[in-house]
Amino acid sequence: MLNILVLHGPNLNMLGEREPEIYGNKSLNELDERLHKICKGYGIKIRIEQSNHEGELIDMLQEARKWADGVVFNPGGYTHTSVALRDTIAGIDIPVVEVHLSNVDAREPFRSESLISPVCLGKISGFGWRSYSLALLALKDVLSSD
Amino acid sequence: MLNILVLHGPNLNMLGEREPEIYGNKSLNELDERLHKICKGYGIKIRIEQSNHEGELIDMLQEARKWADGVVFNPGGYTHTSVALRDTIAGIDIPVVEVHLSNVDAREPFRSESLISPVCLGKISGFGWRSYSLALLALKDVLSSD
Amino acid sequence: MLNILVLHGPNLNMLGEREPEIYGNKSLNELDERLHKICKGYGIKIRIEQSNHEGELIDMLQEARKWADGVVFNPGGYTHTSVALRDTIAGIDIPVVEVHLSNVDAREPFRSESLISPVCLGKISGFGWRSYSLALLALKDVLSSD
Amino acid sequence: MLNILVLHGPNLNMLGEREPEIYGNKSLNELDERLHKICKGYGIKIRIEQSNHEGELIDMLQEARKWADGVVFNPGGYTHTSVALRDTIAGIDIPVVEVHLSNVDAREPFRSESLISPVCLGKISGFGWRSYSLALLALKDVLSSD
Amino acid sequence: MLNILVLHGPNLNMLGEREPEIYGNKSLNELDERLHKICKGYGIKIRIEQSNHEGELIDMLQEARKWADGVVFNPGGYTHTSVALRDTIAGIDIPVVEVHLSNVDAREPFRSESLISPVCLGKISGFGWRSYSLALLALKDVLSSD
Amino acid sequence: MLNILVLHGPNLNMLGEREPEIYGNKSLNELDERLHKICKGYGIKIRIEQSNHEGELIDMLQEARKWADGVVFNPGGYTHTSVALRDTIAGIDIPVVEVHLSNVDAREPFRSESLISPVCLGKISGFGWRSYSLALLALKDVLSSD
Amino acid sequence: MLNILVLHGPNLNMLGEREPEIYGNKSLNELDERLHKICKGYGIKIRIEQSNHEGELIDMLQEARKWADGVVFNPGGYTHTSVALRDTIAGIDIPVVEVHLSNVDAREPFRSESLISPVCLGKISGFGWRSYSLALLALKDVLSSD
Amino acid sequence: MLNILVLHGPNLNMLGEREPEIYGNKSLNELDERLHKICKGYGIKIRIEQSNHEGELIDMLQEARKWADGVVFNPGGYTHTSVALRDTIAGIDIPVVEVHLSNVDAREPFRSESLISPVCLGKISGFGWRSYSLALLALKDVLSSD
Amino acid sequence: MLNILVLHGPNLNMLGEREPEIYGNKSLNELDERLHKICKGYGIKIRIEQSNHEGELIDMLQEARKWADGVVFNPGGYTHTSVALRDTIAGIDIPVVEVHLSNVDAREPFRSESLISPVCLGKISGFGWRSYSLALLALKDVLSSD
Amino acid sequence: MLNILVLHGPNLNMLGEREPEIYGNKSLNELDERLHKICKGYGIKIRIEQSNHEGELIDMLQEARKWADGVVFNPGGYTHTSVALRDTIAGIDIPVVEVHLSNVDAREPFRSESLISPVCLGKISGFGWRSYSLALLALKDVLSSD
Amino acid sequence: MLNILVLHGPNLNMLGEREPEIYGNKSLNELDERLHKICKGYGIKIRIEQSNHEGELIDMLQEARKWADGVVFNPGGYTHTSVALRDTIAGIDIPVVEVHLSNVDAREPFRSESLISPVCLGKISGFGWRSYSLALLALKDVLSSD
Amino acid sequence: MLNILVLHGPNLNMLGEREPEIYGNKSLNELDERLHKICKGYGIKIRIEQSNHEGELIDMLQEARKWADGVVFNPGGYTHTSVALRDTIAGIDIPVVEVHLSNVDAREPFRSESLISPVCLGKISGFGWRSYSLALLALKDVLSSD
Repeated sequence: MLNILVLHGPNLNMLGEREPEIYGNKSLNELDERLHKICKGYGIKIRIEQSNHEGELIDMLQEARKWADGVVFNPGGYTHTSVALRDTIAGIDIPVVEVHLSNVDAREPFRSESLISPVCLGKISGFGWRSYSLALLALKDVLSSD
Repeated sequence: MLNILVLHGPNLNMLGEREPEIYGNKSLNELDERLHKICKGYGIKIRIEQSNHEGELIDMLQEARKWADGVVFNPGGYTHTSVALRDTIAGIDIPVVEVHLSNVDAREPFRSESLISPVCLGKISGFGWRSYSLALLALKDVLSSD
Repeated sequence: MLNILVLHGPNLNMLGEREPEIYGNKSLNELDERLHKICKGYGIKIRIEQSNHEGELIDMLQEARKWADGVVFNPGGYTHTSVALRDTIAGIDIPVVEVHLSNVDAREPFRSESLISPVCLGKISGFGWRSYSLALLALKDVLSSD
Repeated sequence: MLNILVLHGPNLNMLGEREPEIYGNKSLNELDERLHKICKGYGIKIRIEQSNHEGELIDMLQEARKWADGVVFNPGGYTHTSVALRDTIAGIDIPVVEVHLSNVDAREPFRSESLISPVCLGKISGFGWRSYSLALLALKDVLSSD
Repeated sequence: MLNILVLHGPNLNMLGEREPEIYGNKSLNELDERLHKICKGYGIKIRIEQSNHEGELIDMLQEARKWADGVVFNPGGYTHTSVALRDTIAGIDIPVVEVHLSNVDAREPFRSESLISPVCLGKISGFGWRSYSLALLALKDVLSSD
Repeated sequence: MLNILVLHGPNLNMLGEREPEIYGNKSLNELDERLHKICKGYGIKIRIEQSNHEGELIDMLQEARKWADGVVFNPGGYTHTSVALRDTIAGIDIPVVEVHLSNVDAREPFRSESLISPVCLGKISGFGWRSYSLALLALKDVLSSD
Repeated sequence: MLNILVLHGPNLNMLGEREPEIYGNKSLNELDERLHKICKGYGIKIRIEQSNHEGELIDMLQEARKWADGVVFNPGGYTHTSVALRDTIAGIDIPVVEVHLSNVDAREPFRSESLISPVCLGKISGFGWRSYSLALLALKDVLSSD
Repeated sequence: MLNILVLHGPNLNMLGEREPEIYGNKSLNELDERLHKICKGYGIKIRIEQSNHEGELIDMLQEARKWADGVVFNPGGYTHTSVALRDTIAGIDIPVVEVHLSNVDAREPFRSESLISPVCLGKISGFGWRSYSLALLALKDVLSSD
Repeated sequence: MLNILVLHGPNLNMLGEREPEIYGNKSLNELDERLHKICKGYGIKIRIEQSNHEGELIDMLQEARKWADGVVFNPGGYTHTSVALRDTIAGIDIPVVEVHLSNVDAREPFRSESLISPVCLGKISGFGWRSYSLALLALKDVLSSD
Repeated sequence: MLNILVLHGPNLNMLGEREPEIYGNKSLNELDERLHKICKGYGIKIRIEQSNHEGELIDMLQEARKWADGVVFNPGGYTHTSVALRDTIAGIDIPVVEVHLSNVDAREPFRSESLISPVCLGKISGFGWRSYSLALLALKDVLSSD
Repeated sequence: MLNILVLHGPNLNMLGEREPEIYGNKSLNELDERLHKICKGYGIKIRIEQSNHEGELIDMLQEARKWADGVVFNPGGYTHTSVALRDTIAGIDIPVVEVHLSNVDAREPFRSESLISPVCLGKISGFGWRSYSLALLALKDVLSSD
Repeated sequence: MLNILVLHGPNLNMLGEREPEIYGNKSLNELDERLHKICKGYGIKIRIEQSNHEGELIDMLQEARKWADGVVFNPGGYTHTSVALRDTIAGIDIPVVEVHLSNVDAREPFRSESLISPVCLGKISGFGWRSYSLALLALKDVLSSD
């Protein structure tokens, strides 16, 4: 059975409340429940974490290399500014899939520059909460086929 | 039943042969067969096209608005250079999902700039042939839930 | 009597349908009819062509130097990306007037950069279908006065 | 009957004398006479002003909103440097058409950047004195059709 | 009665000690006392916090939306680098006023670029500790007049 | 008693009329009256001037060094383009506070670059007409405390 | 015996006619005849093609990998804009030599940036029709010595 | 006898008073007297003007083409921002020498970019009031030798 | 006896494990032991800390000014992104030496830009764990000679 | 008989030894012998020089205008940095062909910018030692045909 | 009596021969003779040197600080590329005046960027050989008045 | 016993005299003596050279590969401008350590860009003459441990 870390970056705890026209009106709890349900179907065990702290996200990713087979990571605002998170992902051996709820390329120009992407396995953006479930499916398929 | 256009851009007809360390060693035919099989399971009817011609891709996308419910589009090298394709996608009413076989952000710097992304529904990149199947699933879920 | 080529670039065949808040809701056929009617008044004979293919637009411009006295050209999305079209216009001897339906400078920043403009006689933008009729009048006056 | 302000920016009083290979050898007086004659035909009443002072141009544009139905404006060298003129045009309710005698895009690179264009109705450049008469016709058609 | 969060970003705990020729020689405690005194006069109740941690600042701003009517925020060095803080401010419903002790535009060039400003209500910089008291007055007036 | 020049730059005479969704719907006269009233309370004597001419603004600032203790200056569109005004402010000995009605950083990108800011005492933006009254208070406090 | 594709990009069919001060006054037919004659001497069999269509150039290059030992390619205006052609050349196994009639570096600045060069074997520019014959000789020597 | 216009741009009327460590402590009157004295020796008749208004400087330069053989011009802050002044100088037939009191290249980076220089005969900077006397000598020699 | 803080930034706790071809295969513990041993020889007392949190690094640097004579700091990924850390170092009075294990200039281009360097005493990079011991020696010599 | 200077720039004396995977493993002597042999066949007399000194290369190029009919020049590292060499080539009347052993465009980005190219007759790069022999042939043909 | 070094940079030995439409048709010898004659009148003793070698120019400037009171320096092509020459000038105590024969700002864009200017006393350009005599006069006046 | 070349670049012969507030007041001779003394202790034999000539520095580095085990190199002003020196270092097999007396990153912005760094083993800057002794120690340790 696969173990996956689902990691929500900064401000995702405000989901459902913050700019709902961009991020949807489902809360983070509802999203997490859906993911748990879907993962049961996929035979994946997920642990879900959220933090607004760059350092805590680094700690959790470093920790994950000891127990997880892969990571689904929404780096939020750190996508565009964190070389430290990039170094962490490059330094752990497990595959990381970058996800975004919204189509980041269709927003402010700086949103389409990502420091994180070059060290990830792949990227899924623009499908709301489904970005996560697609990423989990992608990880499952990639990890099973190796 | 959903009708989806799967559109392969320039050089994808060389799949399996061209730079296999980046694009994998499955041929375009094998990829297309897999997609047909998967789509049967999803209850989606797909038509698959490939062209190296920017103008033909525009024609096919314009045509698609008359019969298709959505498009899965790998714009290949036109991703970074075609304002005309961007205008087409912005001008047709059906959702388009941008896909890439490889992690374009991890390659030459100019690969991460996309003229196409801002007018697409979402983007999936880095999962090899699975980028397509994930995109089809995404389209199916989005179109069904509306 | 003057012979003029009126050349519509990519996506102009979707006129009336595509983003009508920007491009107006008259179809390309209606636009072409108006131009024919106006040109009769001006004593100009026009041939009207449209293509989504950069190569075909080049072919038609090259062809035009054999029969036309001037060209009214809406390069659409190729305005910002085609050095090849620029080379064609620089290489044919007849005057070309660049037209745009919308005020391109008021839209995305990349719209105001034009590779085509430096090799054209002049530019008219922002007057909807009237950009074309003004361009035809301009060509008529310039060609008659020489 | 339509009232239009024709506003000549800096150095246009030197017309006919200054760099005639670019701007032509007709003087500003001759140009103005032609415009008066043409406008009679069109049923437009024009008032023509020239100033080398950015502040005076702003004053005249602000004044125009009280009596004119539209403006034909050649901002000359202020095209590329005046945010204040841009603010004025954005702040008055009447349509402004930007004109240039020469093809500004074919000259020094900085000439093709315009701070004024995004707040104008449209732009006409490259037809010598005819840029003005075309602009007057454009304004007449646009204002009559509303 | 209004509730306002006064939030000091990184290194402001060194106030009075750090580069006094730029930041003045009053300590953070003295500043906070002054603000409490002034606010009493204004009928505002303030809570004052300081943190060097980007994540904690995000947490406190998110928390503030539950109890505060507005925020006076000195983002310090995070002004120029934190998309995550920008997202937080954009996501909470209460007005935030950005303050700086020194005239940031008169220092290193990168200081004048602010990721935070576009999502704030307004900005006050260059008046030393008075930047804060002016911001509190501004918030009081804006909140009272609505 | 303090003497302060309140100087309104280009287009501020259109206040209340020009883009009221950005600048508010109070006229310049109403704003000036409020400032006079407030200043009476503060024990400040203000002289208020407006000009659309860069040169006149320079003249008035140079003049002010002979009679005023400080200046509250809204440079309007000259904020982003006038090195000459910057030189004037740098060359007179009295403190100048830069004010803006709207949050300039939240508008077009070029609005957040200011040539004026580095030579001013401080900057206040985004509070509508209150930007002025806050600036007057700031000047009063700074000038009194020296 | 070596088989070589000589591929002329857009506008080269206008050779002799288009801007002869840059490109010389020999027609494409004359150039092709010379190349055939020279190649006979070299023991090379050449096939010569021209197209104004980016897509056709891609098709022909893809086709060439089945029968040709190498390619001499003048990408014309696509040199500076075609990522798709770059991908094609990178994806076929045979060596491609980039040629230009004129010294592209001595013309407009954008001419010296080439998307094609990094994936070619080498580049020859500035020798008029001799750029082609030198390229054929280069290919012959390189292919024979391996 | 030669007639020369010596034209002082914005803020030069504050000479002696404004930032004396950069511009020296001699007033504009003293400078003008010295120039008159020197020019007597040279057999040059000078008229000296100063203005803070871009438009007035343009007017005076345009006027000068009717009576002066050359111009010594210190454009002050307009050096870096005025395309209109550049156009004026390019449009009048008499030689203009650009002067600066201080070494502009050793100050803020934007000071070394000059819109004016490319259309002037030559440039002299860094010698305080002597920049003017050297420029007058240069003009005298150049005009006499023709 | 000198007291020195040796501060390891983000991801250095993964030393020996993370990208060993760049960072070497010694663990952080082994590195720390070596440093302790070397420092005994030098008569330096070191305290060694590591954190992935920007805020904690700021806290520790601020703390260090109370007990340490100098700091050896490897800012890791924060080198290129943290204005807040730059402000901290500029604000504490003790010398800080920046160290890097690898030759940062030989890696991705963004690695050679450092926000931290301008406020440090000096920089040592490229010598693996020896970068630290050299930095300690440097600090010892500099601090002893003052 | 033609006299040609073959000029090797900096570090070419290390040929065969320095980065052989880029520059090949033939020594400069071997290369020079080959060129002598080939030139005998062509009826060209060559003088071959090498220097690591920018100034000596300038001296030799200036000297060459007295005795040589043309130059084959590999400017090595000075390609990208020497305006002085560019001025020399622009100032001598004989044609200069720029050569490079490797495909400079496929290496570090700064390699594709050449200060030298715009003043040369043409450029040949990427064919190893054959770049030189092709350049000699090109010069022979060009010089003979004039 | 003043001792001045007149230092000619690279390619100035070709004066009279190289691009005479830019640099004039007087040879370097003729120029030097004129300067000797003029300097006799001024009571200045000059030593004139020329070199194409950056290193020799540095040596001569360093030498000059032992015997000369000032330097007139035409850095030629090294103007835009030599940080080493900049460091030399910054490091010697005597004033250096930068001269150019032509108006460098009116030529290629890179010509107007000078690494040398910020460390010179002043700059004179555009007056042909008179740039030198004006510089000598300037040095004489500045050195005498101190 | 190790043989090391210590190579001083341009202007270092002025040490002690040139800008002593940046470079210290010890002469180059004193520095060299110290290094000889220190190296005796380390069991290293050093040869020390200085040149202002880029070409001579290249020659000496090329020469060094025949007798030296490593190089300590202060490239001075050539750090930022010499691709030729970069190529030399990349082409010789022995390790080179880049040193700078001052903290180059804290000076003019262009100082922090180094063309040399990417091909060196490591870099030490900011410790005055100790930068050299630290580099010698670094080389000794690295060379001994291999």
